[in-house]
Amino acid sequence: MKTIILFVEDKYEDLELWYPKIRLEEAGHRVFVAGPVAGHIYTGKHGYPCKADLSFKDAAAKSFDAVVIPGGFAPDRLRRSPEVLHVVKDTFSKGKPVAFICHGGWVPISAKILKGKKVTGTIAIKDDLENAGAIWQDMPVVVDGNLISSRTPLDLAVFAKAIVDQL
Amino acid sequence: MKTIILFVEDKYEDLELWYPKIRLEEAGHRVFVAGPVAGHIYTGKHGYPCKADLSFKDAAAKSFDAVVIPGGFAPDRLRRSPEVLHVVKDTFSKGKPVAFICHGGWVPISAKILKGKKVTGTIAIKDDLENAGAIWQDMPVVVDGNLISSRTPLDLAVFAKAIVDQL
Repeated sequence: MKTIILFVEDKYEDLELWYPKIRLEEAGHRVFVAGPVAGHIYTGKHGYPCKADLSFKDAAAKSFDAVVIPGGFAPDRLRRSPEVLHVVKDTFSKGKPVAFICHGGWVPISAKILKGKKVTGTIAIKDDLENAGAIWQDMPVVVDGNLISSRTPLDLAVFAKAIVDQL
Repeated sequence: MKTIILFVEDKYEDLELWYPKIRLEEAGHRVFVAGPVAGHIYTGKHGYPCKADLSFKDAAAKSFDAVVIPGGFAPDRLRRSPEVLHVVKDTFSKGKPVAFICHGGWVPISAKILKGKKVTGTIAIKDDLENAGAIWQDMPVVVDGNLISSRTPLDLAVFAKAIVDQL
């Protein structure tokens, strides 16, 4: 059983958070959701509520076996949190999976871990990923070492499977 | 690869449709969503959109390897459709999986297939299930032959796993 952290903020892409969360639980792992305030309920882009188990500060004080970053417009806020970036950098530097989908790629850009790495993400942030030194590929899932990335909710089946397989 | 039908209507429980859908696709199956009108977009209880691939009439003209019925308030409408009930009865009588979660149990009640069967579902419809002759059990997932049932979105991991395992 591994311990996984998922980040939430308002306007997160509903399925990009919930599909990996439930899939990883199905695989026997323990999944925590971290948001700005523990216990607060955040609302997805389409309206699905999600309660944060931990605050970003709580998360930064712990160590996780993998990080998953959903898309929507949540990553625009997540990338501004030094605690979120700390968790991403810490997990990445330990060789553990860092997975992101859609607009989720904004967070590893701000964590400055993408230089020379093959990744994917929504076409909307292709330029941002490339300007951060990443090599963007138009594929349902791209795995480069411990970085796992996908483009849109349509890729969720292969995205979650890649995380489960790497764990 | 099996062919699975999922039923949709407005106010479907968003995750109860999407988690099994993507999970069954991940397992290599082909999943169709049927609604009253093919191509129409239905809106989940929390707001997630879902486009119907087929109409109920299209679905009734085909044969499927499994049926999945999500909850929310969609089942209140689904149970009024003779085509939906036909597909459920046909699939059940062939010994293939009929899965339902939360308020989804209203549909097999109206398909009259529950007499003497062990099932679960949201506590709200426990009386309806028992009045239909079923034996309601308070468990995350109940499997009785080819009937698979769960209580709420919190049971989705074991619910989808049971469907995948039976297929």
